Amino acid sequence: MLKKWLRRFYASPPRVIVAGFAAIIFIGTALLRLPASSASGETTPWLEAFFYSASATCVTGLARLDTGTYFSAFGHWVILALVQLGGLGFMTTGTLFALFAGKKVSLKDKLILQESLNQGSLEGIVRLVRRVLLYALSIEAVGALLFALRFMQEMSPGRAIYYGIFHSVSIFNNAGFDLFGQFRSMTAYVGDVYVNLLSVVLVFLGGVGFIVLSDLLELRTRRRLSLHSRVVLWVSAFLIVVGTVTILIFEYTNQDSLGPLGFGEKLLAAMLQSVTTRSAGITTVDIASFRDATQFAMILLMFVGASPGSTGGGIKTTTFAVLASAVWSMMRGRSDVVLFRSRIERSKVNKAVTVTMLSLAIVMGAVMILSVTERQSFLIILFEVMSAYATVGLSAGMTGDLTPFGQVLIAVLMFVGRLGPLTFTYALGTRSGRTLYRYAEGRIIIG
Amino acid sequence: MLKKWLRRFYASPPRVIVAGFAAIIFIGTALLRLPASSASGETTPWLEAFFYSASATCVTGLARLDTGTYFSAFGHWVILALVQLGGLGFMTTGTLFALFAGKKVSLKDKLILQESLNQGSLEGIVRLVRRVLLYALSIEAVGALLFALRFMQEMSPGRAIYYGIFHSVSIFNNAGFDLFGQFRSMTAYVGDVYVNLLSVVLVFLGGVGFIVLSDLLELRTRRRLSLHSRVVLWVSAFLIVVGTVTILIFEYTNQDSLGPLGFGEKLLAAMLQSVTTRSAGITTVDIASFRDATQFAMILLMFVGASPGSTGGGIKTTTFAVLASAVWSMMRGRSDVVLFRSRIERSKVNKAVTVTMLSLAIVMGAVMILSVTERQSFLIILFEVMSAYATVGLSAGMTGDLTPFGQVLIAVLMFVGRLGPLTFTYALGTRSGRTLYRYAEGRIIIG
Ligand SMILES: [K+]
Ligand SMILES: [K+]
Repeated sequence: MLKKWLRRFYASPPRVIVAGFAAIIFIGTALLRLPASSASGETTPWLEAFFYSASATCVTGLARLDTGTYFSAFGHWVILALVQLGGLGFMTTGTLFALFAGKKVSLKDKLILQESLNQGSLEGIVRLVRRVLLYALSIEAVGALLFALRFMQEMSPGRAIYYGIFHSVSIFNNAGFDLFGQFRSMTAYVGDVYVNLLSVVLVFLGGVGFIVLSDLLELRTRRRLSLHSRVVLWVSAFLIVVGTVTILIFEYTNQDSLGPLGFGEKLLAAMLQSVTTRSAGITTVDIASFRDATQFAMILLMFVGASPGSTGGGIKTTTFAVLASAVWSMMRGRSDVVLFRSRIERSKVNKAVTVTMLSLAIVMGAVMILSVTERQSFLIILFEVMSAYATVGLSAGMTGDLTPFGQVLIAVLMFVGRLGPLTFTYALGTRSGRTLYRYAEGRIIIG
Repeated sequence: MLKKWLRRFYASPPRVIVAGFAAIIFIGTALLRLPASSASGETTPWLEAFFYSASATCVTGLARLDTGTYFSAFGHWVILALVQLGGLGFMTTGTLFALFAGKKVSLKDKLILQESLNQGSLEGIVRLVRRVLLYALSIEAVGALLFALRFMQEMSPGRAIYYGIFHSVSIFNNAGFDLFGQFRSMTAYVGDVYVNLLSVVLVFLGGVGFIVLSDLLELRTRRRLSLHSRVVLWVSAFLIVVGTVTILIFEYTNQDSLGPLGFGEKLLAAMLQSVTTRSAGITTVDIASFRDATQFAMILLMFVGASPGSTGGGIKTTTFAVLASAVWSMMRGRSDVVLFRSRIERSKVNKAVTVTMLSLAIVMGAVMILSVTERQSFLIILFEVMSAYATVGLSAGMTGDLTPFGQVLIAVLMFVGRLGPLTFTYALGTRSGRTLYRYAEGRIIIG
């Protein structure tokens, strides 16, 4: 009975992914509530430990406990482990361990990996997974070293290395936790070109997706980027520029944010914010002081988010591109959706529409519920919900004031957002078999 | 040269519709600014007259001038004429005049009518147009009589008839203007079952669309409603119930809105609000006092709006149904979109996606701009923008405080919303011819 149930369960990759992530969150909760995890040696309440564990595993970065001051060194390593597992995806990591142990990868494992990496084909999956770890660890190591070199100017070498590793992993995995204390994120480095550029590069490499990274490294031999990589890179560049310009213009004269800075610093801060709003969630200025228009623009950037198969969230750059292109085709009276002279399969367009609509429905539903339970302005709630769902982790100020109910709902949003609404749909529902008959076409009037 | 240009212009029905509506708005502006139109005999400023004319022609009902007290009787008749022209659609009206004058209806006129009524085929268009006028005027006449009978209890018979006609036309055409003064809408009748039910019936008949009305009247002979009518009626019923329950629950204990009323009155007010939020825009309670969650729920109701070929706005009930059904199909792993055992043509699904996405983009863009130019909270701005775009006319309080720029933008939103984003797309762009080649399919990863 149990065996049969387990076999059926294991046969559904989305279900295994959901259960695996949930298991990591609960193990993280148990570890983070230990007295050893807190700096003061106190036991952390279940709900607080759960919220933090969910935030770390879903690489979101919304924090009610001040990472730098509340947790012990042990707590920091637990957090880093959760971020690393959540960022790389637990299946990737799990299978890699299996690979290193010399075990063979079964077809079932491959299927789960395929779902988890969002790849269309099984070929090269194992090779890709091996690369994922190689790339991730290499980039994180270089990032840690470069951060450590900078931090040595203001702390002991041992501490600088510790800070270097933590921030490199946290930023590459688009988690956005920091050790600087008082929920200040990286505001101390607002004008620091070195720290800003290093952060932007790490966020970009983490958020662009392993497929694109791998594609870029093979560019010398292949000479041509895949359609997927071209779309990701162009849309990312477009969003970074649009975000930077929007934030710069809207906040230029705001004395509480960019106003007091010089032009170079303004540009640097706007660029960092544009890049990190699409998932990483670090900041060098006080988000709560931003104007409404800027916060709304950031909500839209968060919604689009990073790219598929990456450490980031949101509906993804490719979804945005396909949707925009589908609308444009329809407006021009064309039936094919075309990107870079390639036709996009009809099923991909449907998937893009579905992911976007489900995401909108989830976000709007959560906003409506929270505007009943929480005492906050509508925009602040929308900002928080989008930040959780797109695993961004920026807050305009309400994370610390959440009611217990609000905490659970925000944690659920991070979880659903990290795995994507379709993963949940497939995990819950039995994907109904093909129907053998088609209904006759009916007439209806639209718009 | 001019003749050639005119011929090309006339060959594009969407362009004629846009130009025709714009012409009515400008004629209305000129008439409303005349001293004869105001009760005090003063000349109304251009911008104010333009805003009111746009609001009347687009049957929106957002008003900066108090309809009941600011305008003279002449002004009221001008407003009523604009509402009637805007509600029935100027082409319908225009061709009907031509019909009555004994002229033949040309194929070109029929094409324009087809676009304007959103009908798939040319057959029966002229018959339909004749019916539109018959139904509309009959319903308005009965509504006026029933309103007048009620108003006679509190005013002179002459005045009661005048009020009866004005409110019947205004409510049937989903315009939502009223003569009661001080921007109170129908708050004086919050517990009046007769006035509430009459209003709900008029709004429903106006918002359900002429096609459905005609279908319902032919039910005796045909025995079966068309797919279109079934979708419209079920979705309308669903939205009315969901809206009523949501408003009732969220406002039940709010002492500034439904709180002080008895249960029956609460239910009546919630139902009226649910029905009129999807385009008519009349109200019996103070919208500004509603809770954030209620206002947000109303924003979603406004977005969906009324049904195609009606006096109401929004993306329309059928668009909502097709979109929801498409998402559901995709979630179930099915390729066909099915409503009531009828398959929905792929091009209709595309149109539903496009209308929705364009509407979202327009609304969000306008909200972002207005949150820079206007000093209002985000939710109030979103409410106002959605109310204008979906030609609803409810206001949470900012219409009177709009900056001149804000007035123009809101007027443009009413105009675009009334005609629909696709009409504008087709009017502006040359619908590019079919491409004779297809691009090869490319691979991309979504979500
Ligand atoms: K994050
Ligand atoms: K209206």
